Amino acid sequence: MSEPSAPKTSPGNFFEDFRLGQQIRHATPRTITLGDVALYNGLFGARFAVQSADTFAQKIGYPRSPLDDLLVFHMVFGKTVPDISLNAVANLGYADCRFLKPVYPGDTLNAVSEVIGLKENSNHKTGIVTVRSGGFNQDGDTVLDYARWVMVRKRDETAPASQEKVPELPKSVAASQLGAACPPIDAGAYDTALSGSPHRFGDYKAGEKIDHVDGVTVEEAEHATATRLYQNTARIHFNQFAESKGRFGRRLIYGGHAISLARALSFNGFGNAFHVAAINGGRHVAPLFAGLTVFAWSEVLATAELPGRKDVGALRLRTIATKDHPCADFPYKVHARAGRGPDPGVGDEYDPAVILDLDYWVLLPR
Amino acid sequence: MSEPSAPKTSPGNFFEDFRLGQQIRHATPRTITLGDVALYNGLFGARFAVQSADTFAQKIGYPRSPLDDLLVFHMVFGKTVPDISLNAVANLGYADCRFLKPVYPGDTLNAVSEVIGLKENSNHKTGIVTVRSGGFNQDGDTVLDYARWVMVRKRDETAPASQEKVPELPKSVAASQLGAACPPIDAGAYDTALSGSPHRFGDYKAGEKIDHVDGVTVEEAEHATATRLYQNTARIHFNQFAESKGRFGRRLIYGGHAISLARALSFNGFGNAFHVAAINGGRHVAPLFAGLTVFAWSEVLATAELPGRKDVGALRLRTIATKDHPCADFPYKVHARAGRGPDPGVGDEYDPAVILDLDYWVLLPR
Amino acid sequence: MSEPSAPKTSPGNFFEDFRLGQQIRHATPRTITLGDVALYNGLFGARFAVQSADTFAQKIGYPRSPLDDLLVFHMVFGKTVPDISLNAVANLGYADCRFLKPVYPGDTLNAVSEVIGLKENSNHKTGIVTVRSGGFNQDGDTVLDYARWVMVRKRDETAPASQEKVPELPKSVAASQLGAACPPIDAGAYDTALSGSPHRFGDYKAGEKIDHVDGVTVEEAEHATATRLYQNTARIHFNQFAESKGRFGRRLIYGGHAISLARALSFNGFGNAFHVAAINGGRHVAPLFAGLTVFAWSEVLATAELPGRKDVGALRLRTIATKDHPCADFPYKVHARAGRGPDPGVGDEYDPAVILDLDYWVLLPR
Repeated sequence: MSEPSAPKTSPGNFFEDFRLGQQIRHATPRTITLGDVALYNGLFGARFAVQSADTFAQKIGYPRSPLDDLLVFHMVFGKTVPDISLNAVANLGYADCRFLKPVYPGDTLNAVSEVIGLKENSNHKTGIVTVRSGGFNQDGDTVLDYARWVMVRKRDETAPASQEKVPELPKSVAASQLGAACPPIDAGAYDTALSGSPHRFGDYKAGEKIDHVDGVTVEEAEHATATRLYQNTARIHFNQFAESKGRFGRRLIYGGHAISLARALSFNGFGNAFHVAAINGGRHVAPLFAGLTVFAWSEVLATAELPGRKDVGALRLRTIATKDHPCADFPYKVHARAGRGPDPGVGDEYDPAVILDLDYWVLLPR
Repeated sequence: MSEPSAPKTSPGNFFEDFRLGQQIRHATPRTITLGDVALYNGLFGARFAVQSADTFAQKIGYPRSPLDDLLVFHMVFGKTVPDISLNAVANLGYADCRFLKPVYPGDTLNAVSEVIGLKENSNHKTGIVTVRSGGFNQDGDTVLDYARWVMVRKRDETAPASQEKVPELPKSVAASQLGAACPPIDAGAYDTALSGSPHRFGDYKAGEKIDHVDGVTVEEAEHATATRLYQNTARIHFNQFAESKGRFGRRLIYGGHAISLARALSFNGFGNAFHVAAINGGRHVAPLFAGLTVFAWSEVLATAELPGRKDVGALRLRTIATKDHPCADFPYKVHARAGRGPDPGVGDEYDPAVILDLDYWVLLPR
Repeated sequence: MSEPSAPKTSPGNFFEDFRLGQQIRHATPRTITLGDVALYNGLFGARFAVQSADTFAQKIGYPRSPLDDLLVFHMVFGKTVPDISLNAVANLGYADCRFLKPVYPGDTLNAVSEVIGLKENSNHKTGIVTVRSGGFNQDGDTVLDYARWVMVRKRDETAPASQEKVPELPKSVAASQLGAACPPIDAGAYDTALSGSPHRFGDYKAGEKIDHVDGVTVEEAEHATATRLYQNTARIHFNQFAESKGRFGRRLIYGGHAISLARALSFNGFGNAFHVAAINGGRHVAPLFAGLTVFAWSEVLATAELPGRKDVGALRLRTIATKDHPCADFPYKVHARAGRGPDPGVGDEYDPAVILDLDYWVLLPR
């Protein structure tokens, strides 16, 4: 007689499985190596000098090149998927994401989440789960902390509504909270010929819009390899047999893939924005599929000095990524094209080409 | 005048080139690095914690994360291809494959084979060559030892029959032979929250069947990259120009790719089966091609304690991989579906969806 | 009000932006790691034992496995693209390329170029820019030096003709200049069973032609990943949306990808040619696209002893790569097939299957 298989395989959590205040220690710890960095570089083509060359990093004060911040994000995020979003219908948003300590090759990351919000949808089929997730290194130091909310299926539509709470989350990370993951740097030793851009913090102004010009086409092998590298198990990215019968007829690309592509494209315009210090909010406006070409543009939403620091300054950016649509005309919302200010027409519909609307802080040398 | 090129390029060995007892030292020695591990992880998405995190491995008694056992297998196997199977018609089977010592990043592997069986086929066009191959590290220690048999073309159909011997090979590796590549571990320090599965050795029973649920679609770039990484030179995997005129009209995926995919899928059900200790036998039932989606299920054929060891126990598994066929109904042989015991209907035909039938031992913490 | 974006993004240099004698320090410094090596191996399947195994390298006198010479070339070349060839119409040729010092994992490379030739074309739309580029390690030692010339667009057709100079470049690197990047080796300790080929320097003769037999099909994900790994930003390789409207209707593969594929294929025939010492000249005869299969053959143009060295000897090779055309018939120029000597019919048209004509020096143990 065979045993039923259900108890041994993980079906993931459904909406009614979550409890407010619940703490979830996620599997799988991961030592991030130079090999991971190389594969990430091959997949995204990052060119920020601090992450590219130990010599450059050392000259300004790092012990060696730190990991790309988004690689850290994806590795931590990936760990949360089996517990939080295996049964998600949609990944709705991120908030209050702060990078708190640099991560170096050889460090091992773990992740823990706490359920901070629960709200059943009126259709009784799904509910919104909000978690605060932390990434920790081998010494127990928090390297990353963020909130995200996802729409998760109920196992049983008739299950009673669970506790309800809609957490308050900051619209943006305060400038005073930025910089923990950036050691004091010697901005004078930061060589802008080697870094590939002459523009330092002081050269940017709020309201400035920059088209990142280049486009990069995504292949199935690329996004699937990246997403497996992060040990992200969301099924919709890998299984063409199932997805061919699904909503889109094809594999959906992990939203973080678009974030990393947009970040790499943003080098052309923000070549010295060497550190992503925080993500204020992000929205995956539309799905991305293999064969499409990603473009991006950014707007400087604000500039900020960091309390007590003369070495670096922060730019708050909105980066918009599109599919099959070059960004010289700054596509954003349908009734809110370029030149109408930093936050026009909230509630307006996005231009159909837009796939990502990301609001984040980067640091540049002063 | 140009020289004839034949003497400088290797045509591989044909059936009549092999001699019983012949020893073959294979090219190419290979230092396996953290870079290889990262690429392997990106291609297969392994999640076993011992191989994923140095901290996890160290906590239970390893000096650091060992290499994935199948990566070791593929690297050793790859070395044998130019000498053994460049002119193979079919890779018929493996037997008595034992992992004998852990391999760590930075170790260098070599391979040596001995011809232990030869039998010409009655058509005089091909013959079966059986070799015993060993993988060695830089200290000369055997890390892997296995037998395999392949059907190899004759160069000349009229060549006289060579020596004939059909070697006896064990149907399975005895439990007493398992565990050499697994150091004594502290099973109490093995953290099942971090590893991603609560199920230890004692939680599994013979006869239990587990559907691994997930499916993963293979791309041409993925299998070709993996197979090149192993320096496996079998032409059928790489050359679409030639294969477009061949039997399948397309590149055939290295059989080991399916093994690694099935192993990665098996995490969902056997999350603590951190070590492949032996492969009793394996059969590539049908070819796999890019664009198809691989699923897998496993049956526990037996459970075994290891003599003198209280830290780990062994499960003998049959893992069946399929193409474009989810495994909730445990597809196996046409007249032998789920529930008829561990070895039903030998000689029956396989379900047409089945591509791999692998019989192997894994170790889990007790 | 938004600022104009042009000043912040780099449009690259146009023909009239270059000045004779101009020195350009290129971004982005790059620490090349074992991770890069692994990805390179996965993409090209190199099998030269010196680069594959630390133990093999150490036995003959290297401190450890050096990087593949072409990986060094691609990394240095990639750095020059944003400044030299972002607006190139065609990459016309290389000359006098010498590898001067071995590069090891962990070394950091920088690149500097000097403009040594300028010549406007008669159509006033483009001009030819010749640069001499150097690659330097973290100690400031030159590891690579080469000249290349590219046809670059003018920004403004009416801009006055700039200075004009056509530099003299050697047709080949003299044998006396070879070997700087190869430490003295113990040729007796070089194990030809492990290296995979019995043929040493003395076994080759000028005029000998070798078909490398195997073919390898290129996928979009593979060439794009390789080219991003080198931080090569030439747009034509990555942007299917733009290229679908362009001259070829598809992404063009970086010419260096064909060089690395041909080099890997050449192992079958030159398995002990462990070091590329110099590139005399190279021509990308026709474009390569994904889905095509690359084959290659080589002719030994000359053999040379190195002054003062008894350990290694040099072969000057012409390697021809083709697309979808096996090379048993040594395809080269339309009126100059195999057997007419080392340099037949200059000016004749290439066989339409030819994509690469590379003239270079390799070192083999004596």
